[in-house]
Amino acid sequence: MMTTSTPTQQVNQWLTDFDAALRKQDLPRVMALFQDDCYWRDLIAFTWNIRTVEGKDEIQSMLDATLDETRPENWQMEGEASESEGVVEAWMTFETAVANGKGLLRLKDGKCWTLLTTMSELKDFPEPKGHKRPKGAEHGATRNRRSWLERKQEEERSLGYEHQPYCVIIGGGQGGIGLGARLKQLGVPTLIVERNARAGDSWRNRYKSLCLHDPVWYDHLPYMPFPETWPVFSPKDKIGDWLEMYTKVMELNYWSSTQCQSAYFDEIAGEWVVRVVRHGEEVVLRPQQLILATGMSGMPNVPEIPGAESFKGQLHHSSRHPGGEEYGGKRCIVLGANNSAHDIAGDLWENGADVTMVQRSSTHIVKSDSLMEEVLGPLYSEEAVEAGVTTSKADLTFASIPYKVLPDFQRPAFDVIRERDAEFYQRLEDAGFLLDFGADDSGLFLKYLRRGSGYYIDVGASELIANGDIKLASGVTIERINEHSVTLTDGTELPADLIVLATGFGSMNGWAAKLISQEVADKVGKCWGLGSNTAKDPGPWEGELRNMWKPTQQEALWFHGGNLHQSRHYSHYLALQLKARMEGIPTPVYGLQEVHHLS
Amino acid sequence: MMTTSTPTQQVNQWLTDFDAALRKQDLPRVMALFQDDCYWRDLIAFTWNIRTVEGKDEIQSMLDATLDETRPENWQMEGEASESEGVVEAWMTFETAVANGKGLLRLKDGKCWTLLTTMSELKDFPEPKGHKRPKGAEHGATRNRRSWLERKQEEERSLGYEHQPYCVIIGGGQGGIGLGARLKQLGVPTLIVERNARAGDSWRNRYKSLCLHDPVWYDHLPYMPFPETWPVFSPKDKIGDWLEMYTKVMELNYWSSTQCQSAYFDEIAGEWVVRVVRHGEEVVLRPQQLILATGMSGMPNVPEIPGAESFKGQLHHSSRHPGGEEYGGKRCIVLGANNSAHDIAGDLWENGADVTMVQRSSTHIVKSDSLMEEVLGPLYSEEAVEAGVTTSKADLTFASIPYKVLPDFQRPAFDVIRERDAEFYQRLEDAGFLLDFGADDSGLFLKYLRRGSGYYIDVGASELIANGDIKLASGVTIERINEHSVTLTDGTELPADLIVLATGFGSMNGWAAKLISQEVADKVGKCWGLGSNTAKDPGPWEGELRNMWKPTQQEALWFHGGNLHQSRHYSHYLALQLKARMEGIPTPVYGLQEVHHLS
Repeated sequence: MMTTSTPTQQVNQWLTDFDAALRKQDLPRVMALFQDDCYWRDLIAFTWNIRTVEGKDEIQSMLDATLDETRPENWQMEGEASESEGVVEAWMTFETAVANGKGLLRLKDGKCWTLLTTMSELKDFPEPKGHKRPKGAEHGATRNRRSWLERKQEEERSLGYEHQPYCVIIGGGQGGIGLGARLKQLGVPTLIVERNARAGDSWRNRYKSLCLHDPVWYDHLPYMPFPETWPVFSPKDKIGDWLEMYTKVMELNYWSSTQCQSAYFDEIAGEWVVRVVRHGEEVVLRPQQLILATGMSGMPNVPEIPGAESFKGQLHHSSRHPGGEEYGGKRCIVLGANNSAHDIAGDLWENGADVTMVQRSSTHIVKSDSLMEEVLGPLYSEEAVEAGVTTSKADLTFASIPYKVLPDFQRPAFDVIRERDAEFYQRLEDAGFLLDFGADDSGLFLKYLRRGSGYYIDVGASELIANGDIKLASGVTIERINEHSVTLTDGTELPADLIVLATGFGSMNGWAAKLISQEVADKVGKCWGLGSNTAKDPGPWEGELRNMWKPTQQEALWFHGGNLHQSRHYSHYLALQLKARMEGIPTPVYGLQEVHHLS
Repeated sequence: MMTTSTPTQQVNQWLTDFDAALRKQDLPRVMALFQDDCYWRDLIAFTWNIRTVEGKDEIQSMLDATLDETRPENWQMEGEASESEGVVEAWMTFETAVANGKGLLRLKDGKCWTLLTTMSELKDFPEPKGHKRPKGAEHGATRNRRSWLERKQEEERSLGYEHQPYCVIIGGGQGGIGLGARLKQLGVPTLIVERNARAGDSWRNRYKSLCLHDPVWYDHLPYMPFPETWPVFSPKDKIGDWLEMYTKVMELNYWSSTQCQSAYFDEIAGEWVVRVVRHGEEVVLRPQQLILATGMSGMPNVPEIPGAESFKGQLHHSSRHPGGEEYGGKRCIVLGANNSAHDIAGDLWENGADVTMVQRSSTHIVKSDSLMEEVLGPLYSEEAVEAGVTTSKADLTFASIPYKVLPDFQRPAFDVIRERDAEFYQRLEDAGFLLDFGADDSGLFLKYLRRGSGYYIDVGASELIANGDIKLASGVTIERINEHSVTLTDGTELPADLIVLATGFGSMNGWAAKLISQEVADKVGKCWGLGSNTAKDPGPWEGELRNMWKPTQQEALWFHGGNLHQSRHYSHYLALQLKARMEGIPTPVYGLQEVHHLS
């Protein structure tokens, strides 16, 4: 059915019909508003889960299970609707029984193609910011008043000892810090446990030339955006200092130099027992909720290579690589051809090492500038900011595209990049480098979502490979390690003083195995990946990232992580899930994921 | 002449005429565009000075002297003009030979009543922010590259030793820090010298219940606004932490625990010789420019009171008061009735002391809430932010009102407050408190500008005075101090364990006398005050604050200070003046102020 009404009229009509049908719980009438090819992505507003339901049947089942409790109403368009290539798009707000929500709707021919519903805030627990910010001063005269500093010091002294936090976050990198800030704002007592001495050290400790590969507009933390003077690609020590400052300014309870020893869920008490060593002293924490924010990479994948024990040089996994400074003049073999491999190989070359990269299988390469301009630019750039695309708007827009159709959204941009950088790619291939653009040519972000690996955002190392400054052995791997060399599967022997295994990481549930138990790790199953049935992301189709920011099969255990963009955006929903539980708001989970893979 | 055109048409016509007349340097035609009662305030765009010229003759003289060099052009209205009570108002941009400018124009009957012209940026030296922000990463491969951290550490190590800074700022409070950030952005090598151990200590070291008296929207530092979660009135330790973090994040060269011993201007070398002791070691700095940011208060005013030497209790100036915690149960006399006196008296009472305030002359009292809502609210509040009044817009709007007419702008708001809080004022008067609303009833901000004293923003102590919890002796002073008491001028004797002299401060040029020489202090003359010929602000009329943020009679000596709002806004113009000098851009100063008062 083609309509002659304006996009805004179409959306208003649709929302009116939708509202009326939902109020009456008239599911056939609701479903008549959707087209056959339809998607509803919900971020905890209906499902208390992060969940995409696909097609009319799944949507109807979801509504059938959730409408009684959710009681959605008051659907209102925000601003005007727009239309592009037959798709009408509009922002909207709505309410549920307990929350205010925000959404993004796309119509085709007057019927819903994609719908995003997200929880913005719990009605009874709005965040104290903007109009609701705290007063700070307590005007009037009060005998024996306690100052902000005294209250803060008292909290620092007693939390974890005399008073137990509601949440413990293991890992005080950007993920743990951002989530900690959200929980602080929501008044959820939280301790962040970090093994390094200072917030930001997980960046500072890396090789010296490292800068963020994502640009500043994509990287903001919650509440406190980077200033307009911030560089596009933040140097690692600068982002480290920012994280340290942020932690203090947001008044997080941050236990640095603290190592988590073990954790188990006390079923009877309904709480976790978390043993940590803080400044050499064991402390037992008993939080209600445990969040692993230990990095989206799990344990290092260390392949067993025959002869490794006989090697007279240095051999280590990329995660333990100290940077290239000690290796000037040394013969270095880097096994792997993804981001870490390129960064480490480039850094070794810059320090005067003789470097060979061993590429086992094809890699997706995108030049940083091309990625910024063609892929991220429309949502995350100075131009986007000037066009009114706030960080929040960009995050929600990105979130509104169902993972199932995301490849179709991404492919055209990468097709443009392939053209734009054709000469560059040709030179890499001429050097013997094995290239790909992802299983379905959908490019970098899909690779990141499916497997968290298989690509390199080129900031310089590709040129070194193309021009032969970094030597390349491709389509092979290391068959055997000798005392002073490696032998490749094609029989080549390469002399070696250093071997870096840039061979990736296991799934995040490896952290659960290490800190909690293998049993819990298996109960929870694989983290990350969409079930796309592509390399390293086996099916069945999940529709969402496994286990991330949402309930898992282990009660009161949560995984938080991802890049700065994901951590910023999804920490909001994770924090609301935790807050609701603390306040005793019912949080019936619809569609808790099943476990299909253990790692 | 009444016109029938719209405000926008009127302004466009005026700007077209103005532009044409200025280009031809046809001063009679320019002056025909002004009404007789007219003001032109210039922030360094025409005058390389902070200067208000009043009336046609002064404006014509200013243009006559500055047009050749300034070559203004390209006057463009920004947005639409508005009209209210017969005054048409519009924002505009313009260019000079060396700079881009921004202004605010007010017309009455089609002719200019007030004109503000400000320099936004030097054309050849735009700030690296927004679109021009640094890239951060250096993509590509470079042997022996130096990282951000290495470059930063090298700068910290060498600046002040191997390389001399262009500017030295004495005083690392909010003023010095904000100016330091602006200079850093402009690439002006700067050292900030601060005697305390940590940035923010000048706040931390004050009495424990202190919070900022101005609200958050008024208090932002340059570049990095407080987050939306920040309290309205920042507790002192929280603002201290913010300043410390800001200093690090903005990468300022900040020498803490460093005491300035002396400074003199080496006329032959054309540079300052500044002796400082840093961590116990003397360092001699040789900057081209010296900025005193030592606080807008100068040396403490300590009245000589007969018998003071015989006093067996504690006697100190308010600036040395440690806070009330030690004084529970003690009999305390606070001499003075301004902000410090009230804060200290209230804090002593909260700590259980027996407190008497000795009020020598009348004080202007405004309740904090009333000040926020009636005076600051239209420009600095959550509502203002939502209405599109950015901090920059608010600052420029406030700056656009000539000091001569500012009392007429302020008086109505204080008339409203007088009504609104009539009962409160009555109760204070009933308690014997002597009230005023300023010499011409223009209220708090004029008192602040004219004399920097004579008022209290009530955050609670007034209630204690009204209800007698803090005792009051008014219209008297301390005539004599005895061993264990004071005798007032009305003969009353009050027992005393502690006497706090909340008797104010001298002019900022007292710092020049202390750090440089009395000769230079006298050459520069009194700082602050408008020459309003009211109490503590003797004439002649200056039209601007004396010596603040602009050239002084001492070459290469500058004063920076004021509240957070003033420091933020005027540091922009001070930084541009310093940058222009460093780059050798001609900066002919029009109307360098004369000295009429030494202190």
